[in-house]
Amino acid sequence: MNMNDMIVKKRDGGKLSLEEIQFFVDGYTKGQIPDYQASALLMAIYFIGMDKEETYALTAAMRDSGDVADLSAIKGIKVDKHSTGGVGDKTTFIVGPMAAACGVPVAKMSGRGLGFTGGTVDKMESIPGFHTVLEEQEFLDLVNEHGISIIGQTGSIAPADKKIYGLRDVTGTVENLSLITSSIMSKKLASGSDAIVLDVKCGDGAFMETLEEAQRLGQLMVEIGNADGKKTVAVITDMEQPLGQAVGNSLEVIEAMETLKGKGPEDITKLSLTLAGLMIYVGGKAESPEQGQAMAKQSIEDGTALEKMRLFIQGQGGDPRILDDYSLFPQHAFSAEAVSPASGFVQALHAKKVGIASQHTGAGRATKEDSIDMTAGIYLRKKTGDPVEKGEVLATVHGMDEAKVKAGAAELQKAYVIGSQKPRERELVKKIIGL
Amino acid sequence: MNMNDMIVKKRDGGKLSLEEIQFFVDGYTKGQIPDYQASALLMAIYFIGMDKEETYALTAAMRDSGDVADLSAIKGIKVDKHSTGGVGDKTTFIVGPMAAACGVPVAKMSGRGLGFTGGTVDKMESIPGFHTVLEEQEFLDLVNEHGISIIGQTGSIAPADKKIYGLRDVTGTVENLSLITSSIMSKKLASGSDAIVLDVKCGDGAFMETLEEAQRLGQLMVEIGNADGKKTVAVITDMEQPLGQAVGNSLEVIEAMETLKGKGPEDITKLSLTLAGLMIYVGGKAESPEQGQAMAKQSIEDGTALEKMRLFIQGQGGDPRILDDYSLFPQHAFSAEAVSPASGFVQALHAKKVGIASQHTGAGRATKEDSIDMTAGIYLRKKTGDPVEKGEVLATVHGMDEAKVKAGAAELQKAYVIGSQKPRERELVKKIIGL
Repeated sequence: MNMNDMIVKKRDGGKLSLEEIQFFVDGYTKGQIPDYQASALLMAIYFIGMDKEETYALTAAMRDSGDVADLSAIKGIKVDKHSTGGVGDKTTFIVGPMAAACGVPVAKMSGRGLGFTGGTVDKMESIPGFHTVLEEQEFLDLVNEHGISIIGQTGSIAPADKKIYGLRDVTGTVENLSLITSSIMSKKLASGSDAIVLDVKCGDGAFMETLEEAQRLGQLMVEIGNADGKKTVAVITDMEQPLGQAVGNSLEVIEAMETLKGKGPEDITKLSLTLAGLMIYVGGKAESPEQGQAMAKQSIEDGTALEKMRLFIQGQGGDPRILDDYSLFPQHAFSAEAVSPASGFVQALHAKKVGIASQHTGAGRATKEDSIDMTAGIYLRKKTGDPVEKGEVLATVHGMDEAKVKAGAAELQKAYVIGSQKPRERELVKKIIGL
Repeated sequence: MNMNDMIVKKRDGGKLSLEEIQFFVDGYTKGQIPDYQASALLMAIYFIGMDKEETYALTAAMRDSGDVADLSAIKGIKVDKHSTGGVGDKTTFIVGPMAAACGVPVAKMSGRGLGFTGGTVDKMESIPGFHTVLEEQEFLDLVNEHGISIIGQTGSIAPADKKIYGLRDVTGTVENLSLITSSIMSKKLASGSDAIVLDVKCGDGAFMETLEEAQRLGQLMVEIGNADGKKTVAVITDMEQPLGQAVGNSLEVIEAMETLKGKGPEDITKLSLTLAGLMIYVGGKAESPEQGQAMAKQSIEDGTALEKMRLFIQGQGGDPRILDDYSLFPQHAFSAEAVSPASGFVQALHAKKVGIASQHTGAGRATKEDSIDMTAGIYLRKKTGDPVEKGEVLATVHGMDEAKVKAGAAELQKAYVIGSQKPRERELVKKIIGL
C-alpha cells in the first residue's frame, strides 16, 4: 500500500478501505509513515470527509493501537460517561456516585489535558491523598465493591490518538467530525465499558459552537458507539455560559459535593440528573430515562449518592472527612472581585472568556509543562439573567498568585455583558440522540 | 507569525498576505518550519487555491530563496523558452539556434530530471565532449559571442522549489495551478532572462490533460511572468501523440539537427517556427509573431540557424563535425521492431505509453539514481493518421540492453490504436496566450 496514492484517493473524493485505514493508523503509530504524509491525509479528510464506515474503521484501528481494557471481572453493565468539554463542567463527580448508588457500575478512565481548568484527574487530585493511579486489580475490586472508581488514563490506551491528535493540533486539522469522533470514541471503546453516555456541549465555550454542529457530532458518535456494539446515547447541552458557579479544581469538586448534598446550583443539578438518568437507563437499571432520572433524584434525597462519593474518596486514598469539612482542601492565598460597571441584568456571561480567565489564574495548563494551582479558580456570583446593581460583585477570583488573581478579576469583568433587559432563558438540555 | 494559524486561515478560504507567504517559503527552506505543517498548508492550498497576487508572492519568494542570475552583461533582450514537458519534445535545440540566428540572445538554464527521456541537459550530453557546466563568465561570453548557450541549472537556483516540489511529490499536492506555476516560474524568474515563451502541452502525454486546464495554467503563468516585468507568452500545444518521430536522447538531438537542415518532421518544424517566431517577436527583433516566424523560416533556409547550432556545440566543447556525421553519436547495440497487427490507419498513438516504453528501454530515469542510456529510444515510423498494412513496421526501438529493447518494442505496440477509418487531424498549436 502506498501512502501518496491513499492521499490522492481521499483528496479526489474517494473512500478509503478498511485495509488502507488500518495501514495508515498502524504505520503512523509505529513511525513508519512520516508526519508530512499523515498531515496531508488529515487535511484531505478535513475537506472531503469520511463516511460512517470509514469513521468506524479509523476509530477501531486507533482503539486497537494500544491496550483495550478488560472489565469483564466487573459484574453488570458498565457505563461510561464523557463530556466534549466545557467551562465549569464537574458532572462526572456527581453522576458517577449517583449511577453507582442506583446499581450501575462506573469504571472510568479520565484524562488530564490542557484547558481552562485541569482535567477530571487533576480535579480529583485536589482532594489530599487521593490517588488516580491504581493497579488494575485494585481498580476492578473497587468497582465491584463500591460501584465506582475513576483512574487516570494510561499512555497505553489508544496511543494512535495521542500521536494523531498532536499532529492535528499543529496542522489545522482539528475541526472535522470524523476526526473528532475517532479521537473521542477510540479511547471510549478502549476503556472497556459496555455503554456510553455522551454530553456534547454546544455554544461559545464549547468546541462545537452551533447546535447543528453539535447534533452532527453527537449523531456520528452514537453511530460509531453502536457500530461497536456499545449502547450509546448523546445529550446536546448548552455551553454559552459556564455550568454552575464554580470554575477551577477544588472549587468544582466542592460544588459537586454540594450538589450531591442537594444544595447544588440548578443547572448543574438538572444536567446531572439528566445524564445520570440516562446512565441508569442504558445500564439496565431503569425502564426509561425518566425512571432513571427519578432514581438519580432519589439517590440525592436519601443520601446514597453522597455515601458512594464517600466510599469513592476513601477507596482511592482520600480523606472522606473532606465532604464535611471543605477546609481540608488546599486554601487559596489571594482573592479579588469583579464588580458590575452598571445596573441591569446579566445579558450574557461568555463561557470561553471565563475559561480563559480561569486558566490565567493558574487553574488550567496552557502547555504540558505547566503546573496547576489547585486553589485557583472563579466563583460566579451572578449568571445570565440575574439582576445586578452597579458596583455589585459579579464574581470572585481565587488563587496562590496575587498578580494572576488580580489580572483574572479584570479579565473576568469582560466576560460579563450587562444590559437593561432580562434576556430570554436558554434551554440547558437541547436534544437527546440515540434513544 | 504562526504556521498553524496560517494553515487554518487558508483552510477556511482566506487569502495569505505577502508577509505570510514569505515567512512560509523562507522558514521552510531554512528548515525552521517542519514538513508536516508545510504539507498541511499545501493541501489546504490544493483545495482552496490561491489568487494571482498570492501566486506571484509565492513565486517571488521561491525565486528569492536562492541565487538570481544576473544576465545584464549580455546585450539585448534575453529570451527564455520553457516547455511543461511532453514526449519527443526537442524544440529547445531548434528554436535556440533559430532565435540566435535572428539576433535574439538565448542564455538558458535547463534541467535533468526524471521522465520518459533525459532532460535537455542530458540530451545535449549525448554529443561527445559537450559540457553543460560552465563558469559564469564563460556562459555570458558565449552568449555575447554566438548568441546562444545552454547550461545545467545549479542547485542554488530556487532551492525552495526543490524542497517544496519534493514534498508535494509524496503528499498528493502536485496538481494545483498556483503550485505548478510557482514551481516553473520561480526558476524562470531566477534564470535572469527578460522575456519568456512558454510551451504548455495538453493531452494524453502531458501534465495537463484537457485544453481547459492547459489554458488556465498558461494564463496564470503569463500573468505571473508579466507581474514580474518579463514579457511572457504561452502557446498551448497538442501532446496526444509524441512530437516528431524520435523519442530518446541522441535520437532527439539528431532529429533537431535534421530540422535545422530543413528536413525535420512537419509537426516539429511547425511548432519550432511558432515558438521561435514568438521568441524573435518578444525579443524585439520582429514587429509581429508572423514576421518572427518568417525570419525563423529564413534562418533555416539560409543555413544561419544551423551555423548557430555548430557554434553552440563547438562553444561548449562538442565536436561540430557531428552535425554532418551522426555516427559520432554513441551507437546502440540492439534494436527491435513493433509491427502492425492489422491493416488500416493509425487511429491514435498514445504519447504517455510511448513515453513509458522509452523510459523502460533506458532513455529516462525512474529515480534520481538511475543512469541514462544515451542510445536508447524509439523511432516512430508511423504516426496518427498514417495508413498501415498488417505486419508493417510501426516503430523501431534502440538501446544497449537487448532485453529492455525487446520489452520496449512489445510495450510500444500497445501504444498504437489501429482502425479502419482515417482519424480527424488534430490541431498542433491550439492557442496563444499573452499577445
